[in-house]
Amino acid sequence: MEDTATGRGKKLAILAADGFEESELFSPKEEIEKLGGEVEVISLKSGEIKGLKHMESGKSIKVDKVVSDADPDDYHAILIPGGLFNPDQLRTDEHAKRFARAFFEKGKPVFSICHGPQVLISAGLVEGREMTSVKAVQKDLENAGAKVRDAEVVNDNGLVTSRNPDDLDAFNKEIGKEFALDAGDRHPAHRQGVLA
Amino acid sequence: MEDTATGRGKKLAILAADGFEESELFSPKEEIEKLGGEVEVISLKSGEIKGLKHMESGKSIKVDKVVSDADPDDYHAILIPGGLFNPDQLRTDEHAKRFARAFFEKGKPVFSICHGPQVLISAGLVEGREMTSVKAVQKDLENAGAKVRDAEVVNDNGLVTSRNPDDLDAFNKEIGKEFALDAGDRHPAHRQGVLA
Repeated sequence: MEDTATGRGKKLAILAADGFEESELFSPKEEIEKLGGEVEVISLKSGEIKGLKHMESGKSIKVDKVVSDADPDDYHAILIPGGLFNPDQLRTDEHAKRFARAFFEKGKPVFSICHGPQVLISAGLVEGREMTSVKAVQKDLENAGAKVRDAEVVNDNGLVTSRNPDDLDAFNKEIGKEFALDAGDRHPAHRQGVLA
Repeated sequence: MEDTATGRGKKLAILAADGFEESELFSPKEEIEKLGGEVEVISLKSGEIKGLKHMESGKSIKVDKVVSDADPDDYHAILIPGGLFNPDQLRTDEHAKRFARAFFEKGKPVFSICHGPQVLISAGLVEGREMTSVKAVQKDLENAGAKVRDAEVVNDNGLVTSRNPDDLDAFNKEIGKEFALDAGDRHPAHRQGVLA
């Protein structure tokens, strides 16, 4: 039974691979857990994935489920963190792209930061959407048809994006708000972006 | 005095930053030096830049000139290697983009491999050009208007691109051939891509 005022009874899928930016996974994860939500790490292979702090070694995290075995219906929302190597691998994986696409099709909250939105570009999910990303990726977002804003956080009907680790306070606040909403509150526009 | 049958008397500018893929800089560098060409490393700051072997630490190399001080007229051709962090920094730097653009405007050879073409996307230089890149970047090249081919090497009128370190043999062979050509042999189509 979902508690619509908090995150209780809801699960967040974190879609990530080796080379994720440490803070961009762990900090939103803690935010959702603080709200009472559950979090599962979904990746391309079982075992552990390794985080980075920019170019330096960072903390690893256990993978809960391989993406080809994960059912998007089990999750209330998805988070795709940044780190350069992380989305670089996810964006060429058909299972990862199909998994991400399912959240758009069902109008569920989608959270992504830094280089994470590269996955959404490759999955064909950004056209017409208002978004931000790390500066280096903004040109690719524009070329893919997104309306890019250079802001610490952009929330376009449940698609919440931020630029980099410095934006994590604003990002966490916004994803917490979105995650706590009742599923029935999702805006149809969020779905239309994909289904049109 | 240029020797048009070889690389003698010609200089290659390697535009790179921290996090370049080790083999994608050093292997083409050796190829050009074998032909008698000179090579200079142009970067965003003076000192040294650090290479990576995928996610592991790699060899560093001395920077010969900071890009804001470098004159494109001093060079016969440009190489932009890959490595994820390398083009990610270059592509948001106005001096680096202006430097790369000058080689297109003068119809000079441009060599790039793996994630290197991201710099050319940000500099607005790929529309209508036949190119390849690492698989993850191919979608961004397409969205920017390039005609993407999944081949070990693509040479579109002096714009030579390859996918990854496994393609280095084919890449080096093609860039060696292009580098040895007389400057007068450059195809006007190479310039037209930019100036149109």
